[in-house]
Amino acid sequence: MTHMKARIIISLKDSVLDPQGQAIANALKHLKFHNIQSVRQGKIFEITFKEKDSKKAYQQLDNMCKRLLVNLVIEDYHIALLP
Amino acid sequence: MTHMKARIIISLKDSVLDPQGQAIANALKHLKFHNIQSVRQGKIFEITFKEKDSKKAYQQLDNMCKRLLVNLVIEDYHIALLP
Repeated sequence: MTHMKARIIISLKDSVLDPQGQAIANALKHLKFHNIQSVRQGKIFEITFKEKDSKKAYQQLDNMCKRLLVNLVIEDYHIALLP
Repeated sequence: MTHMKARIIISLKDSVLDPQGQAIANALKHLKFHNIQSVRQGKIFEITFKEKDSKKAYQQLDNMCKRLLVNLVIEDYHIALLP
């Protein structure tokens, strides 16, 4: 069995307000970064697991997202298998 | 002035314990994902800002990381300018 590494990026949907991101944008403006337009924050998970078939791996990661990691009502996710 | 978008990925250094990641790994194992080896969690910021020179943009983002966004004692960061 080969080890695989994947990166899952979870971000708020564009239609969902992101008060933490706005707070960070304001904090950056106070530090004289005046050209900031917007900041959106998200989560990232780096998962290492045993699997040799990349298609199965992808399906499994998709399942993990849907069953535990992502709140599908307000969040989008993107899965990338790392080489 | 052109708008630029950048993605900053912030992750715990390898030498730093990640209890939240371990909790997620355990939760996934309870959901019958037995082939999980490890989970490490991190943060991601998507920043939109006004700047046309990509070198200056990179320097500015690096400054933001060092001055506000990243705790350099325990975290690593990676900056990517999005097309």
